[in-house]
Amino acid sequence: MLFELGVRLVEARVVRDDAAAIAEEVDLLRRRHTFVFTSGGVGPTHDDVTVLGVAMAFGCEVVTDDTLAALIRGAHGDAVTPAQLLMARVPSGATMEHAVDVRWPVIAKENVWLLPGVPEVFVKKLAVVRARIPKTAPFLSKAAFVALEESSLKPLLDRVVLAHPLVQVGSYPKWSDARYKTKVTFDGLDASAVDRALEAFAKELAEGELIRVD
Amino acid sequence: MLFELGVRLVEARVVRDDAAAIAEEVDLLRRRHTFVFTSGGVGPTHDDVTVLGVAMAFGCEVVTDDTLAALIRGAHGDAVTPAQLLMARVPSGATMEHAVDVRWPVIAKENVWLLPGVPEVFVKKLAVVRARIPKTAPFLSKAAFVALEESSLKPLLDRVVLAHPLVQVGSYPKWSDARYKTKVTFDGLDASAVDRALEAFAKELAEGELIRVD
Repeated sequence: MLFELGVRLVEARVVRDDAAAIAEEVDLLRRRHTFVFTSGGVGPTHDDVTVLGVAMAFGCEVVTDDTLAALIRGAHGDAVTPAQLLMARVPSGATMEHAVDVRWPVIAKENVWLLPGVPEVFVKKLAVVRARIPKTAPFLSKAAFVALEESSLKPLLDRVVLAHPLVQVGSYPKWSDARYKTKVTFDGLDASAVDRALEAFAKELAEGELIRVD
Repeated sequence: MLFELGVRLVEARVVRDDAAAIAEEVDLLRRRHTFVFTSGGVGPTHDDVTVLGVAMAFGCEVVTDDTLAALIRGAHGDAVTPAQLLMARVPSGATMEHAVDVRWPVIAKENVWLLPGVPEVFVKKLAVVRARIPKTAPFLSKAAFVALEESSLKPLLDRVVLAHPLVQVGSYPKWSDARYKTKVTFDGLDASAVDRALEAFAKELAEGELIRVD
């Protein structure tokens, strides 16, 4: 999804449920990158420390957000519990990011977006990220599926990489799939450059070696 | 697998195919942790830069390992190509770690173990890790599957966490599984402490709320 939005995914980190460890990573990554997305640790229990970790990364307080608290009260009515209201805590100064047809906002503190860990909810909230982050040119990606081992392709790959500096070429061997042995990817911001790299690669293959292009 | 071996998994990082980026992460993590395991980037193509990245992390050269080169020659005979022999490159001073019934060794440079990225090969080589790393007491883990929402469990969880400091308690909501709503895990090195925490938790649940214990 990020690739389609023109955002290059540079790195990912899995951190334990420890506010200080989360704060250290978030503080480094928020300075290094345009966007940081967290997943998980936003529930009401003792091991949910992402909001605190992000607040520590920014040196700010944890406060209750009125919009979130009202949504939680609206969902539970008079039966609302203190534990449920804990899920209205946000780093001070956070914004609530909304999208049409998504009931619950995403918490964003500057360039750090806090997404939930439960996969079904995470996926729903991606619609908010898609709607709210600034649009840039999407990356284009094509893939060639080849019936040759990676090591046989190396000399050709080296030539294509050298001749097409605007295109990022990836090579991924596959062992258990009888349909192909290597997937070669061509990624870039310039569609014609991507096409030219793919063509330069494909025309050097013998008949039957190129199984398909996606 | 690490948990069973008594090794606590502290963090995981996904790094792009860039030798300098890999070197930076490996250098930090090898100093911080007892073991570091890498996966991927050990093939023969231009985007396989893990061996170089690990060598840079240790400030050492990349050299051809005679044992690996002989194995590669043995597998391919006279048809061996320069690309295939590139897979005999290792950080200088690396050891080849072997296990019974695993044909190809794992490359280890001090406390950094280089595993392949192809899942089928990665899994095979885990047998070498299991055989070769020093045995310590395994972590014990039990899980209670509960028919209550995480927020309803919070007061009980807080009491159990406070009363059982030797046990690490995790709480994982599940949305799409009709059989339970929250999985609560109890992990630790002391089996009786783990059991006591689980019992203290379970005895506070009403009939039908505890679905099963694993």
